[in-house]
Amino acid sequence: MRIRTLALATAVSALAFPTAAQDAAPLGAEIESTTKVLIQQGLRDTAGLKFVEDLTTEIGPRLAGSPQEALARDWAVAELNELGFANVRVEGFEIPYWSRVIDEVSITSPSMQAVAATALGGSAETPEGGVEAELVRFTSLAALIAAPASQVSGKIVFIDEHMIKSMNGAGYGMAVRKRGGCAKVATAKGAVACLIRSAGTQSHRMPHTGGMLRDGAEGAGPAAAVSAPDADQFARLLERGPVKVRVNIQTEISDSAPSGNVIAEVTGSDLKDEIVLISCHLDSWDLGTGALDDAAGCGIVVGAAKLIADLPKPPRRTIRVVLYGSEEVGLFGGKSYAETHAEEMDAHILAAESDFGAGNIWRFQTGFGEGALPYAKTIQSILAPLGVTPDNNESGGGPDISMLPGLGVPVVTPGQNGMDYFDYHHTPDDTFDKIDPETFRQNVAVYAAFTYIAAETGWDFRKELDVEPTGTE
Amino acid sequence: MRIRTLALATAVSALAFPTAAQDAAPLGAEIESTTKVLIQQGLRDTAGLKFVEDLTTEIGPRLAGSPQEALARDWAVAELNELGFANVRVEGFEIPYWSRVIDEVSITSPSMQAVAATALGGSAETPEGGVEAELVRFTSLAALIAAPASQVSGKIVFIDEHMIKSMNGAGYGMAVRKRGGCAKVATAKGAVACLIRSAGTQSHRMPHTGGMLRDGAEGAGPAAAVSAPDADQFARLLERGPVKVRVNIQTEISDSAPSGNVIAEVTGSDLKDEIVLISCHLDSWDLGTGALDDAAGCGIVVGAAKLIADLPKPPRRTIRVVLYGSEEVGLFGGKSYAETHAEEMDAHILAAESDFGAGNIWRFQTGFGEGALPYAKTIQSILAPLGVTPDNNESGGGPDISMLPGLGVPVVTPGQNGMDYFDYHHTPDDTFDKIDPETFRQNVAVYAAFTYIAAETGWDFRKELDVEPTGTE
Repeated sequence: MRIRTLALATAVSALAFPTAAQDAAPLGAEIESTTKVLIQQGLRDTAGLKFVEDLTTEIGPRLAGSPQEALARDWAVAELNELGFANVRVEGFEIPYWSRVIDEVSITSPSMQAVAATALGGSAETPEGGVEAELVRFTSLAALIAAPASQVSGKIVFIDEHMIKSMNGAGYGMAVRKRGGCAKVATAKGAVACLIRSAGTQSHRMPHTGGMLRDGAEGAGPAAAVSAPDADQFARLLERGPVKVRVNIQTEISDSAPSGNVIAEVTGSDLKDEIVLISCHLDSWDLGTGALDDAAGCGIVVGAAKLIADLPKPPRRTIRVVLYGSEEVGLFGGKSYAETHAEEMDAHILAAESDFGAGNIWRFQTGFGEGALPYAKTIQSILAPLGVTPDNNESGGGPDISMLPGLGVPVVTPGQNGMDYFDYHHTPDDTFDKIDPETFRQNVAVYAAFTYIAAETGWDFRKELDVEPTGTE
Repeated sequence: MRIRTLALATAVSALAFPTAAQDAAPLGAEIESTTKVLIQQGLRDTAGLKFVEDLTTEIGPRLAGSPQEALARDWAVAELNELGFANVRVEGFEIPYWSRVIDEVSITSPSMQAVAATALGGSAETPEGGVEAELVRFTSLAALIAAPASQVSGKIVFIDEHMIKSMNGAGYGMAVRKRGGCAKVATAKGAVACLIRSAGTQSHRMPHTGGMLRDGAEGAGPAAAVSAPDADQFARLLERGPVKVRVNIQTEISDSAPSGNVIAEVTGSDLKDEIVLISCHLDSWDLGTGALDDAAGCGIVVGAAKLIADLPKPPRRTIRVVLYGSEEVGLFGGKSYAETHAEEMDAHILAAESDFGAGNIWRFQTGFGEGALPYAKTIQSILAPLGVTPDNNESGGGPDISMLPGLGVPVVTPGQNGMDYFDYHHTPDDTFDKIDPETFRQNVAVYAAFTYIAAETGWDFRKELDVEPTGTE
């Protein structure tokens, strides 16, 4: 009897295999020994961090669909070939393109004051020269949604909703809804533009850009984010009386621009048609050099794969490193990959994406079949000395691999400490100096370890519980 | 015998009055009691902090000579009248005016990258559209001075000299020399522009503006400061090969623009012609709202004077609050004051300026006659419970009162903890939220205390040692 329903499986398992079925699976002395060597090498990584430094220095910002993103693909292909990876290639696709040309916001009354602001990705243009109107403040997107159109019509809406700092980025979901919804809701009520308090957690004069929801951008008006101190300035001024603001956003758009995923492999041996996928995204927002978001993730997976490639013998399965394109503007790289490789999904043994900076990995989530949980325990036990705590089996993967679990691919999330991640995320301040080499290298060690185990053991992470009901025969 | 030479006075004093002559002067129970009340009120200040909040919110940036600085004068006159001060007035003067119109810096090769930069005050313009040239890096101003013209000619000079963080701002002198000298030295050697690593101590993508030395600005070429992460990016790129940069600086200048000092008083009683001057500067750089530099200083002295004005009876001497204009661009307000009030210098009993943010006051320097050191001891002893340590007698006052000691006016420096001051100084990030209300209020308490003592005691801080040589008659 095979039980395929998770809830039922858990219930039966609790009865039939109170603990034994959940014990760690034996790894074997040789694999364990090699994994521990990889961990030590990961903690001394140089190739991964150099990848980040070179990418953020030599290319810099890499807006999706831009010439800079194309340069980054060329650069990455050359770099990955030089590192000795196999089958280095670009899988191209087209995306709708948006970039800022002008994004200026200023207070015009009661006094002239520049505002630190940035257009949101996908923002509509204002009339040339900008639009000036009275500012109306709401403390949340919900308050804007609840407001009558008469309160908003002809005005510039300002949503002053704060984002909370947390280790796992819990506040970002709400912030994304505000960022995505502001322009659409405001436009529907007759507003001429929408400004948000940046979706971020720092108090410098540093605005955070970011994409609007697809259905938020379409048909919506101009939208920009202002820095936290500017948001506070708006609030203080509005306490004193009417405030007028000018918003001038001019953009460049195109229905179709080239993007692509860069792929490199460590070819496996006897199970080389089976794929362990580790990934990141190569594109970045345009304000910083995309160091934490997400050159770091690329450096982590490249650094980890390189350590495995340098082992005396190749792993049994193929390790596929994917540097996704155009993540920031709508997960285009992830979707393209899932489509292009639809026939190959069964061969995908495991997938992971690093896209949350370079903070210490403190927990390890899995998204395995129930029968594969002993493998999770084994991996978590190997990672424990790195300060990694076991976590639940509810990993959804990362953004670009978020469509893979639905296609049956097991995923893991090595959960990073993201306490400071949204201090830099999507700002001009996302630069190489913000990466802590020590925590970065801990990430390389973690990725090298679980990737090697997944590639070398031959384990099936899809495995469901295979229950032999007791006392019924 | 009156000994007027400091060194000699000290030597004789050590012989004739080993300790007794340096004892604190008695303050009197009533003055001491009132001073302690003022300290407690200072620690609960509301008027001073509100002054800062209102100025930075309602007016915002206040560039010297600009319409915004004029608005700030009008605003301050109204505010000081409303607070009940006497003789509120503006003493006007004219200054040469400079403001930025465009200041854009970008890397053009090996890849296109925007640079977080700001023109230095007084910078010359580039040709319209900017100038593009190869970047040449020096690690110090001294290295640039030592370099042959052939190394620099036709290029854009970059001085990558770091500024050290310290409690007393010790690193700023060197930084000012770099900021002031870069364009002049570079231009003399044929460079087309000069860029400096910002004179600041933070690592955000936040450039620090600031004036060039008078003799640095004159005849020199375009000059800008880049943020620390951009300076690091330059250095990393230059390690890899040639780097081209474009600098585009356009400015607005005028030979003469209106500025002025705003003055308000608490009129004294029996010694009302004697003046205790406490001051700050009202102008700011244009990037932030000049909160720490120097709305905070104005709030501190206004808050302190207001507490004394609200006492049941006025102090014996007049307290004069001076909000200097155009400090940032060459101490124009301070010089104008010293000229306008040249005949009145003898009536100036004591002067102080708060212009180093709002950090905790941790030491109290004096610039007194040797015979007045017992008064210093008394004041320092009253301030001790506020965490203030006695310091030496080498106070030079603050920037706008730096000419007063030479004119015979005793000064004090309540030394603030400036450890973080240069994280914000002259950047867009100098905004109201950066002020810690608790340390700000400690400043108000300190200013209220020493100002009241100076106004109420009738002490002469010019007093020299009046030595009766022993054993010679």
